[in-house]
Amino acid sequence: MPRLTDPAPRPSPGPVVALDIGGTKIAGALVDGEGRVLARSRRPTPAREDGETVMKAVEAVLGELAASPLWEAAGAVGIGSAGPVDASRGTVSPVNVPGWRDFPLVERVHRATGGRPVTLVGDGVAMTAAEHWLGAARGHDNALCLVVSTGVGGGLVLGGRLHPGPTGNAGHLGHISVDLDGEPCACGGRGCVERLAGGPHIARRALENGWRPGPDGDASAAAVAAAARAGDPVAVASFERAAQALAAGIAATAALVEVDIAVVGGGVAGAGEVLFGPLRRSLRSYATLSFVRNLTVVPAATGTDAGLLGAAAAAGWASSGPDS
Amino acid sequence: MPRLTDPAPRPSPGPVVALDIGGTKIAGALVDGEGRVLARSRRPTPAREDGETVMKAVEAVLGELAASPLWEAAGAVGIGSAGPVDASRGTVSPVNVPGWRDFPLVERVHRATGGRPVTLVGDGVAMTAAEHWLGAARGHDNALCLVVSTGVGGGLVLGGRLHPGPTGNAGHLGHISVDLDGEPCACGGRGCVERLAGGPHIARRALENGWRPGPDGDASAAAVAAAARAGDPVAVASFERAAQALAAGIAATAALVEVDIAVVGGGVAGAGEVLFGPLRRSLRSYATLSFVRNLTVVPAATGTDAGLLGAAAAAGWASSGPDS
Repeated sequence: MPRLTDPAPRPSPGPVVALDIGGTKIAGALVDGEGRVLARSRRPTPAREDGETVMKAVEAVLGELAASPLWEAAGAVGIGSAGPVDASRGTVSPVNVPGWRDFPLVERVHRATGGRPVTLVGDGVAMTAAEHWLGAARGHDNALCLVVSTGVGGGLVLGGRLHPGPTGNAGHLGHISVDLDGEPCACGGRGCVERLAGGPHIARRALENGWRPGPDGDASAAAVAAAARAGDPVAVASFERAAQALAAGIAATAALVEVDIAVVGGGVAGAGEVLFGPLRRSLRSYATLSFVRNLTVVPAATGTDAGLLGAAAAAGWASSGPDS
Repeated sequence: MPRLTDPAPRPSPGPVVALDIGGTKIAGALVDGEGRVLARSRRPTPAREDGETVMKAVEAVLGELAASPLWEAAGAVGIGSAGPVDASRGTVSPVNVPGWRDFPLVERVHRATGGRPVTLVGDGVAMTAAEHWLGAARGHDNALCLVVSTGVGGGLVLGGRLHPGPTGNAGHLGHISVDLDGEPCACGGRGCVERLAGGPHIARRALENGWRPGPDGDASAAAVAAAARAGDPVAVASFERAAQALAAGIAATAALVEVDIAVVGGGVAGAGEVLFGPLRRSLRSYATLSFVRNLTVVPAATGTDAGLLGAAAAAGWASSGPDS
């Protein structure tokens, strides 16, 4: 399992190979020890195809990277994948890629890269690795990082190290219940943070309460955010409810593992103060214990390359840390 | 900060001094590397007195232990204290001991024990250390341990090590919200696990719903448990509600940090299957993600000495681990 033993990865002689695998796209890069992307490649994810076809897209991305003159110097491979993943067995079963169920991605990438060592983490853990290495969690020994978009994912840094957990899924804040009698969630639970704060649920709640999209018909969470910024009370209330759920989840995390910062990224976080204002206010209602009261919430800083940088960080870190 | 580097503390040449400080009693012991209590002492906590009077009771306990012929060989001191504690500053502020607010307990015990090194953790963390060393969490690298009594506390073992967090309070499951619109909690939050699962709340809920104590007038959670065992549906329902809240909190913890076992101790856990039956059933409703689905729940095994054994474990562990 990947472990961070230093606050930042050790400089390595060459770059690492990074793969960011999601339901929409498969991105790859060669990333150096300073977080610079030296080469990149990208394919759409053939998410509705069979597992071998999806793997062929991964191999095509790797093939393009292998054409780089820097490829030979690349020593390790890091993968951040849509979850669930099972890092202990090297397999992935991304919800939105049905052709991959317990798919042996680590072994396949190991073979496709000439036997290089491969580190696998979930996408929330990868984003966390990126934010801790180069972003808003840099310098924090105990941090929670969240991705709030269609789903709600996350990851943890504890005691100065990435904490992926035995299977690479730790920090899965989206599916903790903050409303034990609440509405059923797609995961089988009820009242999950994602059920209240995921983008589609922000939009659904606004629509149910009378908000209507503009002439362009855009009924996304981003459109609700625009309406909230313009003062629409129903849109404001839908973001406040999402913020309340996130605050309860963040406060729970702080009480459980003692983090002093929560970094929030993802598309829904793009709403800015429409989300962060009520999130900070709600946090004061839930983070009441003395040791969590000083928790701060900030936006993510690593941008659209977070997944690639995090995969690179996980690979670099894994090479310097003990197994867990 | 205490860290466990081995599954069990290293054998040390002598015993350690253990202190278990609660709102009712102050217990002390000399404990050897096998978890045997070689000497013990105990005083009621003068909880309503000023801080110096409380400290005098601690010193009296230490004085009795110092009369043991084994005292000179004791190399380190471990303290498990009612919280909140602040291990980073060496201070305690137990809710039920108002005379101690930011009380410099570590420094005072350091001086009272002839300059011995002192490790401080919260009582939930201490119980966890005991269960991991000698109890039901032994051999588990990732575990949550809970104390369910008047309050609900807890602690975590992650990656084979005790995870006290920077201030020694991690694992504070009692004050995570599982009902974000729920009833206000004494901590200032709402819908906390403790507000639903603490002993007094189990009793209160049963009374509110029509349960009446027997001729002895006992309206404690233990009396509600006895009624539930006898089939009283209101008493059963009150334990089921407590179990539901605990299940949501345990599942949240598993999703956040990946634990594979939850050990439940404390007075309310003494209810046995009246609690554990619905707890296991409810867990199936909340622990739905693939990587948490195999989570097991078992009763604690270290008994009434858990606090002392945990304080000893924390002291032993601290001497063999790096600071965090």
